Amino acid sequence: MSETKIYLDNAATTKITDNVIEAMLPWLKEGYGNASSLYSLGRKSAIALNKARAQCAEALGCDSREIIFTSGGTESDNTAILSAAHSARESGKRHFITSAFEHHAILRPMERLEKEGFTVTYLPVYENGIVRPADLEAAITPDTSFVSVMAVNNEIGTIQPIKELAAICRERGIIFHTDAVQAIGNIPFNIHEQGVDMLSLSGHKLHAPKGIGILYVRDGVPLAPALLGGAQQGGRRPGTENIAAAAALAEALRASEAGLSEKTAKLLAFRGRLINEISRIPSAKLNGDPISRIPSNVNFSFAGQESETLILKLDLRGIAVSGGSACASGSLDPSHVLKAIGCTPTEAKGSLRITMSDLTSGSDISGFLEALGSILGQAPIRD
Amino acid sequence: MSETKIYLDNAATTKITDNVIEAMLPWLKEGYGNASSLYSLGRKSAIALNKARAQCAEALGCDSREIIFTSGGTESDNTAILSAAHSARESGKRHFITSAFEHHAILRPMERLEKEGFTVTYLPVYENGIVRPADLEAAITPDTSFVSVMAVNNEIGTIQPIKELAAICRERGIIFHTDAVQAIGNIPFNIHEQGVDMLSLSGHKLHAPKGIGILYVRDGVPLAPALLGGAQQGGRRPGTENIAAAAALAEALRASEAGLSEKTAKLLAFRGRLINEISRIPSAKLNGDPISRIPSNVNFSFAGQESETLILKLDLRGIAVSGGSACASGSLDPSHVLKAIGCTPTEAKGSLRITMSDLTSGSDISGFLEALGSILGQAPIRD
Repeated sequence: MSETKIYLDNAATTKITDNVIEAMLPWLKEGYGNASSLYSLGRKSAIALNKARAQCAEALGCDSREIIFTSGGTESDNTAILSAAHSARESGKRHFITSAFEHHAILRPMERLEKEGFTVTYLPVYENGIVRPADLEAAITPDTSFVSVMAVNNEIGTIQPIKELAAICRERGIIFHTDAVQAIGNIPFNIHEQGVDMLSLSGHKLHAPKGIGILYVRDGVPLAPALLGGAQQGGRRPGTENIAAAAALAEALRASEAGLSEKTAKLLAFRGRLINEISRIPSAKLNGDPISRIPSNVNFSFAGQESETLILKLDLRGIAVSGGSACASGSLDPSHVLKAIGCTPTEAKGSLRITMSDLTSGSDISGFLEALGSILGQAPIRD
Repeated sequence: MSETKIYLDNAATTKITDNVIEAMLPWLKEGYGNASSLYSLGRKSAIALNKARAQCAEALGCDSREIIFTSGGTESDNTAILSAAHSARESGKRHFITSAFEHHAILRPMERLEKEGFTVTYLPVYENGIVRPADLEAAITPDTSFVSVMAVNNEIGTIQPIKELAAICRERGIIFHTDAVQAIGNIPFNIHEQGVDMLSLSGHKLHAPKGIGILYVRDGVPLAPALLGGAQQGGRRPGTENIAAAAALAEALRASEAGLSEKTAKLLAFRGRLINEISRIPSAKLNGDPISRIPSNVNFSFAGQESETLILKLDLRGIAVSGGSACASGSLDPSHVLKAIGCTPTEAKGSLRITMSDLTSGSDISGFLEALGSILGQAPIRD
């Protein structure tokens, strides 16, 4: 099997950085106590958990008590929707609003609710891949109780106007949730400033391990837990707390916030270079807004090409990119995201998503561009 | 804060052993690829995941495709019940049976179903803490579609007649689930031989990390996933797979099975010593069957004592034990387990659970007995 030497699929997952591994190791080794236990070893775990929660809150701009640790983005998204559905069954306000290009961890639970008799409006995202606040305003009915719009799309990286969307909901007493899995670590995002009621994030998208995420629930917003069991996390998320992963996530969020401006400057330059150079390939078309997208994301369609073939050819050269969401791979259907922004099935079939992280280097970009040019029968382009 | 030197709360959680840390580290470091990705780094993760699943299946006596990795015991228990409830709503067979002393990850979802109109029968567990198959037979009605009885109780360690219970259900076409969180690693347990339809286990109870568990679902038994989202794990459990934790769990299960007879011999001797010596304390009363309990568990009530005070006094001497389930700590109610076996509230309030692992040494036992005798004003007893 070939070795991956240039990793450009950071929207799928990221390498755990050394500082994060350092932060988690003590809790994988000697600090194994159950945080609910009364004795010293357990109390140390409880203190570490509280510290991790406080660090996460500081990095995210919210209060510690608003943070629930979960097993990842999917659980966070599902919990937000199930909790809102629970409230909606009580209030009778069974109209939910989301966007047409959410992650499946949002869309699938919405579809299940539709089968139960809920009404769900899917906001259009237009060719640029951005939801319009006016569309949200127009979609709201007296029965609307919950809106979920992702902060950044996972395939095309477009940034949504979360603050405006949240404000529209806040004025009307509607719960606003955002799946911020692709936003946190990629753009500045202060939860209280954005004004959202609920937010999901996933650790492994920002150099923390897989298996840990956060559901932020604003103080005062009701939460019906998805899982039922022990009294952990104030009864809001049962199950023995994963201290090692929480400590890792806290360190990853701290490092990500501390390094964000440097990362942004670097990746904006790389993104500019990728967009400029790939755009010169005649078959190439950029998907999603060229400006209002996270610096780490580039997504192109190549007319007449198939994503899978391109990915495997790049893989033979040691380069890792994707055709879209890893979570949807194995599916033969074209990406629902590209469909939502108006790509033809042919365009959607020939897409490549290139996603960077702060670990990406200039030579990674050069190596990728050279390989892509060569595969597409195009001499490498040099400025 | 005092240092925990003698750890005797292995039913709450266990130390991750070095072999397990070794097994997980490559997947925390260089092997970070998303297992759903097409390129080399992702395929290596997919191979590792398949290998981990096969190792788990071998250790548990089942097929790879019957194993779903979850975030832990709570998620596994909840998923089993929610899935059975989904089937029951379709079939109209809304009678479930469980035992009176299940973990809260079983009891709380059952209570929620009762509010929805399900009928739940709670089988008695008698003074010895063991469910009687005849009671299950008597409780079954034409509306019964699901039975869940834990394999080993988490507070008193009593072993339940799972094979008999499962056979009764199998004959009648009723789904049988067991929460085997405290059984796996403590007693021989071959899933196919036991004949259960669904089973939950948790990694951190057997020297794997927190945040990983298994839901076993027998081939042919329908599963309605609890979480909805991506296509991971054959659509049965969405969310990016936690390869590091799966590899750790596979190694923990392998090591646990390989070392089980040696561990059993050692812990049976330790348990005998604990029961003999503690029984000489006039206020002491053993909770649960003295024989049909896992070798690692001892649970005593001390008349006139309070668990919390005893735990904290032992903690000052560097010894970690518990009053019962860590998941229920913080609750002022006496243990529902001890209540179910007929303990008076006073007896339940003064209980201590001492749980060992293969890492427990003879000097740990001596140290604990000496400290306990001293705290209870009893000179240490020597044979």
